[in-house]
Amino acid sequence: MKFEKHIFICTNERNDPNRRSCGEACGMELVKAFKKALNDKGLKGKMRAQRSGCLDACDFGPSMVVYPEGIYYGGVQLSDVDEIVNEHLLNNRPVERLITDFSKVRNSEE
Amino acid sequence: MKFEKHIFICTNERNDPNRRSCGEACGMELVKAFKKALNDKGLKGKMRAQRSGCLDACDFGPSMVVYPEGIYYGGVQLSDVDEIVNEHLLNNRPVERLITDFSKVRNSEE
Repeated sequence: MKFEKHIFICTNERNDPNRRSCGEACGMELVKAFKKALNDKGLKGKMRAQRSGCLDACDFGPSMVVYPEGIYYGGVQLSDVDEIVNEHLLNNRPVERLITDFSKVRNSEE
Repeated sequence: MKFEKHIFICTNERNDPNRRSCGEACGMELVKAFKKALNDKGLKGKMRAQRSGCLDACDFGPSMVVYPEGIYYGGVQLSDVDEIVNEHLLNNRPVERLITDFSKVRNSEE
């Protein structure tokens, strides 16, 4: 395992006026905030946060997934970054209130 | 775990004449080939192949990573897709000859 935690954050931009996408919300800002947080904590090289295409969780966006656990978070805001880093990434305590419940609505593909 | 296997394929384009990037090699073609292979085998919904930004394995590109195992493959060609799908994804036998050996050279960040 190259990274203890590998975080993929959707930055997909759909450009559909009827349907927002994670990238249009705050995907890229989230990538930057996670990268900075990992860097500030000396975790660069051990953990990685990066952009990805559509994670197939558009209805819950802005979406991200943390591997190797495969835990999806939805509706993530910049104000959630510190909690995810401190609780989940550093202490393996996933942030329950943000975990995506896929039973709730139908997902849509990019 | 939303997906039994989640495959992230680097499609990053660096646009540096001195340094090729996975996206300029065949990243997007690989995404399409994996998506088609998963679809053809009725695995859509169970497994997902998608594009991602730089996977921090540029020196080994075209690069991809399969989660939850966190196995990186490098130098992946379109002709390798069927073997990865049939051996690794369907039968949990990683394709040893393509696994990235990170001890070999220094990686470079996007």
